Amino acid sequence: MKIEDSIKRAYEESCHGNRMGDKKEEVELIRQTILNAKNIVIATNNPKKFKVVKDILLEILDKEKNNNISVSKIDLHTEVSDLTRMPVLNKGLIAVDISNADIVIARGRLGVPGSGSMLLIMDNKGRILTGSLSPPSVIHKRNIEDTVKSELIDALKRIGIR
Amino acid sequence: MKIEDSIKRAYEESCHGNRMGDKKEEVELIRQTILNAKNIVIATNNPKKFKVVKDILLEILDKEKNNNISVSKIDLHTEVSDLTRMPVLNKGLIAVDISNADIVIARGRLGVPGSGSMLLIMDNKGRILTGSLSPPSVIHKRNIEDTVKSELIDALKRIGIR
Amino acid sequence: MKIEDSIKRAYEESCHGNRMGDKKEEVELIRQTILNAKNIVIATNNPKKFKVVKDILLEILDKEKNNNISVSKIDLHTEVSDLTRMPVLNKGLIAVDISNADIVIARGRLGVPGSGSMLLIMDNKGRILTGSLSPPSVIHKRNIEDTVKSELIDALKRIGIR
Amino acid sequence: MKIEDSIKRAYEESCHGNRMGDKKEEVELIRQTILNAKNIVIATNNPKKFKVVKDILLEILDKEKNNNISVSKIDLHTEVSDLTRMPVLNKGLIAVDISNADIVIARGRLGVPGSGSMLLIMDNKGRILTGSLSPPSVIHKRNIEDTVKSELIDALKRIGIR
Repeated sequence: MKIEDSIKRAYEESCHGNRMGDKKEEVELIRQTILNAKNIVIATNNPKKFKVVKDILLEILDKEKNNNISVSKIDLHTEVSDLTRMPVLNKGLIAVDISNADIVIARGRLGVPGSGSMLLIMDNKGRILTGSLSPPSVIHKRNIEDTVKSELIDALKRIGIR
Repeated sequence: MKIEDSIKRAYEESCHGNRMGDKKEEVELIRQTILNAKNIVIATNNPKKFKVVKDILLEILDKEKNNNISVSKIDLHTEVSDLTRMPVLNKGLIAVDISNADIVIARGRLGVPGSGSMLLIMDNKGRILTGSLSPPSVIHKRNIEDTVKSELIDALKRIGIR
Repeated sequence: MKIEDSIKRAYEESCHGNRMGDKKEEVELIRQTILNAKNIVIATNNPKKFKVVKDILLEILDKEKNNNISVSKIDLHTEVSDLTRMPVLNKGLIAVDISNADIVIARGRLGVPGSGSMLLIMDNKGRILTGSLSPPSVIHKRNIEDTVKSELIDALKRIGIR
Repeated sequence: MKIEDSIKRAYEESCHGNRMGDKKEEVELIRQTILNAKNIVIATNNPKKFKVVKDILLEILDKEKNNNISVSKIDLHTEVSDLTRMPVLNKGLIAVDISNADIVIARGRLGVPGSGSMLLIMDNKGRILTGSLSPPSVIHKRNIEDTVKSELIDALKRIGIR
């Protein structure tokens, strides 16, 4: 089933009032969209953050299938998204709109300053597939690499990858 | 400091490239916005979900100060938001736009069907203060009350409430 | 040039502060995206509105090239989008997310109740290509067919089609 | 009637399927929100554009009532919003989020590069009250002052102001 058909069926259920929460095949469709992604774009121009995400991705995704995946970053200052109501979402949409990624991984602030960070995995049209959250850095005090690593693992684990 | 001034300072830092992540006083401002809320609206018309959230809120917030808080739900079918790219966000904005809540608590799907649920706490203009995530129900298999309860506790705990 | 490359160049100009407004080739790229669309989805389930838009589209687009265009509507109650901050945009995103349209045409309320209507033409990822506005119906008092017709013609004319 | 109550009634009508388009009192409520605004923020740091908007506003609004209106601009580089899917909307939200404006006037690109400009008038929570559009500058070739002036006049005229 294509994701457009899965969304259409869910929308029809919601319209008819008989939607009973997420279905196994919907979660599976999200998993396959991520596992089968050939062209992955990380919505950052920060080499350190990019390397952390790329290494974990190749470790997790490659084990699941052969290794002809392209993982690239974007060379734009995505901090501009910090002047929006949901920085992480707008960072992801920058990557969706300037590339032909199968999936985009974006990491940034959740909402207002002080609201901590969020990692989102989005598909080729900018739809949200999964995500994860971290408290504000002044609270969790972990280094950036560990934080990004656990965010990515959480975002994949919650839909059954790894 | 008012939240508008806190946001302005953070935006200026981002523009000048000297933003170094969330500040303690920004997290504290979010905490105070939630702890001092007199009028709290839960973006649901589902009595069961409303009761779970209200009970936990009054337990947590009341301990912190006296108890003249109003917690109410909305009597609109918020499932309509399921036909948007980020249902939880649009549910919250419905409550923000039809009430004069100091804070709104919304819970709904994160993104596409199968992407699991998210709880958001938003302020009077619809800005995101904090949030939390749960995997799709077909994966975590917990009952709705326990899920909502842990989502709310997580959303408050990550900014130091409780 | 692909639209992703055009967007990337414009974003780079904005980042470097040397963006000087829309370029001729950007407007031309939008025109070609619309004129070359094979699969057009109208974000409505209302037969009357659908017919008005379809007839004008085929009249305008067909003249420009041969006539193997598919124009279809969606069979979902898009009124659910009226419970969002920008109904017309969310109507369009419903059509983008449940179809593989090359372009989507959505028409709905601009903002709060009383703010009049807007027509948007969006591309396959949900990006806005062009649009047009009408005053609230209580003010302009024209019938729906004439209003939709002039909105569509305005949205196309402002980027040089027709 | 407060705007939250007007929105709630309209949302209920949409839920019950008996919404028949914008009502006169809804348009009047928008008019009053604009005419009674004491604190108006223009979402630009460009002195030239600011002056054009301020002069027309004071001319139109002042005639309607006495002249203790504050009209101010913001001192942030709002071009950052050009790296979002709807620049004009995100520019307006920057002004809403860093000020306590009664209304915000934002002007910027409608959508993708080449899509021309839009002017939006938003309320204190960031809701859209009215707006207007101009074709891409390469097409209309008018100077910026005339364009901004006619956009503002159109946005006010379509809801019966002036």
